[in-house]
Amino acid sequence: MGLFTHDIKTMDDLFLHQLQDVYYAENQITKALPKMISKATAPELKRGFEVHLEETNRQIERLDEVFRLLGKDAKAVTCPAIDGIIKEANEIAGEVEDPRVLDAALAASAQAVEHYEITRYGTLIAWAKELGRTEIVPLLQATLAEEEATDRKLTELAEQRLNHAP
Amino acid sequence: MGLFTHDIKTMDDLFLHQLQDVYYAENQITKALPKMISKATAPELKRGFEVHLEETNRQIERLDEVFRLLGKDAKAVTCPAIDGIIKEANEIAGEVEDPRVLDAALAASAQAVEHYEITRYGTLIAWAKELGRTEIVPLLQATLAEEEATDRKLTELAEQRLNHAP
Repeated sequence: MGLFTHDIKTMDDLFLHQLQDVYYAENQITKALPKMISKATAPELKRGFEVHLEETNRQIERLDEVFRLLGKDAKAVTCPAIDGIIKEANEIAGEVEDPRVLDAALAASAQAVEHYEITRYGTLIAWAKELGRTEIVPLLQATLAEEEATDRKLTELAEQRLNHAP
Repeated sequence: MGLFTHDIKTMDDLFLHQLQDVYYAENQITKALPKMISKATAPELKRGFEVHLEETNRQIERLDEVFRLLGKDAKAVTCPAIDGIIKEANEIAGEVEDPRVLDAALAASAQAVEHYEITRYGTLIAWAKELGRTEIVPLLQATLAEEEATDRKLTELAEQRLNHAP
């Protein structure tokens, strides 16, 4: 079990709590992606989700390394934000039958997940610098760059759909 | 009550559902911001939240106009994602005593809210273009530009804190 919010007293505590929150989020994403892969109909969207699942597993390994560098055990703390984002994704995707509409909904849900990660890694990088933990910044930046690239790819897929709108 | 997810059959339905989702989110944000304003200790952060509350009210008016242009009643549909993001913000901010740590937590929570809105307005703009509803695109783009500006301001505040780290 991670750091309870009532135990947050210092910036170090806040950083550790946020790290545990993102660790939980990444693990939930690895559970959500296989369902999105099986539902996606456009081959490029399906392949995009498969690539992102591989990336997410590497991102979890990077977080393990960040915990190790901090001298802390890798732990997760429940993150209501990612739970809500994934719940909403499942609700919408679970009900749509038309493949084109379903793919649009899946891609939008994935972008909501990406943006949650983008903001959290951005915050972690700022706080790591503030705390003088410069040795962990490159690990967090590597993941942030991947999340931003995935978001851009999803935007491109949406624009391609736009150019082929019936 | 908005459009149930099991009633989503077309891109028009998906667009309307997403619009109702964002309408709910903006309204929840106007309820969450006063608490964040009262908790923030740094004057520039407090002022930033106050400005964003005024902006959010204008953004709701823009959404009212979008519903009107679509010939639909302005309705909200529960959005588990923003509920989760705000729940997480309240949990963390509710427990932190140190003003510096509290402000950092509040600013990070606000950025998570902004990124949720950035991704949703980005999606709405892409779908509005796909559906040929070009008359509503400028309204959505005006709000997206404000959300991105707020996110940038929050990043600047975090960097200022960094430059004055003890």
